[in-house]
Amino acid sequence: MPQVLARKVGLDYDARMTRPRAGMRTVKGVSMARRKKIYEGKAKILYEGPEPGTLVQYFKDDATAFNAEKKAVIEGKGVLNNRLSEFFMTGLSQIGVPTHFIKRLNMREQLVRQVEIVPLEVIVRNFAAGSMAKRLGLEEGTALPRPIVEFSYKDDALGDPLVPEEYIVAFGWASQQDLDDIISLALRVNDWMSGVMFGVGIKLIDFKIEIGRVWDNEFPRLLLADEISPDSCRLWDIETGQKLDKDVFRRDLGNLTDAYTEVAKRLGVMPSNVTHRPKPTLIN
Amino acid sequence: MPQVLARKVGLDYDARMTRPRAGMRTVKGVSMARRKKIYEGKAKILYEGPEPGTLVQYFKDDATAFNAEKKAVIEGKGVLNNRLSEFFMTGLSQIGVPTHFIKRLNMREQLVRQVEIVPLEVIVRNFAAGSMAKRLGLEEGTALPRPIVEFSYKDDALGDPLVPEEYIVAFGWASQQDLDDIISLALRVNDWMSGVMFGVGIKLIDFKIEIGRVWDNEFPRLLLADEISPDSCRLWDIETGQKLDKDVFRRDLGNLTDAYTEVAKRLGVMPSNVTHRPKPTLIN
Repeated sequence: MPQVLARKVGLDYDARMTRPRAGMRTVKGVSMARRKKIYEGKAKILYEGPEPGTLVQYFKDDATAFNAEKKAVIEGKGVLNNRLSEFFMTGLSQIGVPTHFIKRLNMREQLVRQVEIVPLEVIVRNFAAGSMAKRLGLEEGTALPRPIVEFSYKDDALGDPLVPEEYIVAFGWASQQDLDDIISLALRVNDWMSGVMFGVGIKLIDFKIEIGRVWDNEFPRLLLADEISPDSCRLWDIETGQKLDKDVFRRDLGNLTDAYTEVAKRLGVMPSNVTHRPKPTLIN
Repeated sequence: MPQVLARKVGLDYDARMTRPRAGMRTVKGVSMARRKKIYEGKAKILYEGPEPGTLVQYFKDDATAFNAEKKAVIEGKGVLNNRLSEFFMTGLSQIGVPTHFIKRLNMREQLVRQVEIVPLEVIVRNFAAGSMAKRLGLEEGTALPRPIVEFSYKDDALGDPLVPEEYIVAFGWASQQDLDDIISLALRVNDWMSGVMFGVGIKLIDFKIEIGRVWDNEFPRLLLADEISPDSCRLWDIETGQKLDKDVFRRDLGNLTDAYTEVAKRLGVMPSNVTHRPKPTLIN
C-alpha cells in the first residue's frame, strides 16, 4: 500500500535521507542548501519550500507532553508520523476533504502548501478522555451522546485554553462561516477516521486537527493542515483497550514506537527501513 | 474482533445453526417452530421475529444478477454477508447512524427492527462503474468530481429504474425532508465506509443502501435497513484493482466466496467455521 500511495502522489522517494543537514539536498534536483527555517514547533520544523506557497514539513523524533514539561526523543517517531500523516491526508483528500499535503519527500519530510494557520486546535471527541474526562469527572472511555467538536486557542504560554465558539468569532480568529465550515470538515474527518480505525480493530477516542487558510484570488479557502498521527489522536485497541497513541508516552505505559508501529502495521503503512531502537533517550 | 462485537451486542451465538428448518429453534429459548415467513427476496428471507416490531433476517447463499436472469448458489456467501453486515451496521451505529440491526443470532440470521421500507435503492458512487459507466460512456474506475447520490425505484418488474429526485417527492415515495435526511445519511455512510475500506487497502467504488421508516409515537424516524455487504458494494483492491464484490459473479471473474472471504479477512471478520466449497453450484 505505501508503494501505491507513493506512486499516486508522484513521490520522489529517497530512503537514505532521514535528517536534514546544512547543505544537503533533500528534494532531488532542488538544492536545499541553507534553506530557511520558517518555524520550529515541538514535534515538527517548517522550512521554506522549493516553490512559492510551499513548505517542507520535517517530523522530529521529539515527544513532549503537558505543554512541554515532559520531553524525550523517541527514535523513529518522526518517520512513523510522516508516513501515517501522508496516509491519512491522502485518503481524506480522496473523499474530497481539502488538505495542505502535496507529497512525501523522504523518510522525515513532506511537501505541503503554505497556509495561514487558524489559531485553534479543533478537537473532536467520541469518547471522554484526557482533559475532558478530568474537567467533567467522567470515566475515560465513556461514550459521548454524539461526537463533540471543541476548540482550544493555540497559545503555548496560556496552555492552549479551551474556548467557547463565541470567543472565536468575537476575537476574529475565524468568521462564523469559517467556524461552520470547520465543524462540518471536522465531523467528516471524524466519520472517515472512525471507519479507518474500526476496520483495523481500533477505537477512535478523540483527535485534534488544525486548519489553514489559503487565498485563491482573494477568496479564502480552508484546508486541513498540520498532521494526523498517533501524536494527535487517541487510539485504543477495540479488543484489549490497549492505548496506541501519545498517552503511552504521557503516562509511561510502555514503548511509544512500538505503539505507533502497531498502528502503522495494521494499516499496511510500514516504512521498510525504520531504525527501531526500543529505548527512548530521555532529555528531561 | 468478531468476538468483541458479538459480546457487545449481547449475541447468543450458536455456531451449529446454519439453516432454518421447520420446527427448529434458532433463537435460544424462543421457540421458532413454524415461524411465519414475511418476505422472500433474492438473497434474504425475512421471518417474523420473537417480539413485535422485530424480524429475523436470514441470509441465503443464492446469488442473482441482471435482475435475476443469472442465478447460482454460492456456498458460504450468506454466512459471510451476515457477518459483514453485522460488522458494518455495528460500526455505523457507533458513529450515530441509526440502523435496523439488533443482534446476530447465528451463522445465517440476524435480529432486526421491522421497518416500512422506503421503495428506493439509494446508490452512492465515488468512481464510475456498472450502470453509470455504461449510461454515460465513462471508463470504469473514473473518479467522480464528488460523491454522487442517486436513486432507483425498487420494482423488480420494472428493473429498478433510475429516478430523478423530483419523482420521489411527486409520487410520495418519500417527503422532501426524508430525502434530505436520506442524502445526509448516505453521505455519512460513504465517508465511514470509505475509511473502513481505505484502511485495509480497498477502494470503495460505490454501494447501495435501503432505508426503513419506524414510528415513535407518530413521529417517523429513518433507519439504515437491509444489508451492507460485498453484494451491495463495489470494492476494488487499491494496489491491484482486483474486484472483491458481486461483479466477480456478474462477470465470471473467479470464485465469489474467495473474494468475500478476502474482504472479511482483511477486516478481521472471519467466521470460524465457514464451510468453504470452492465450486458454486449453477442453477441457471
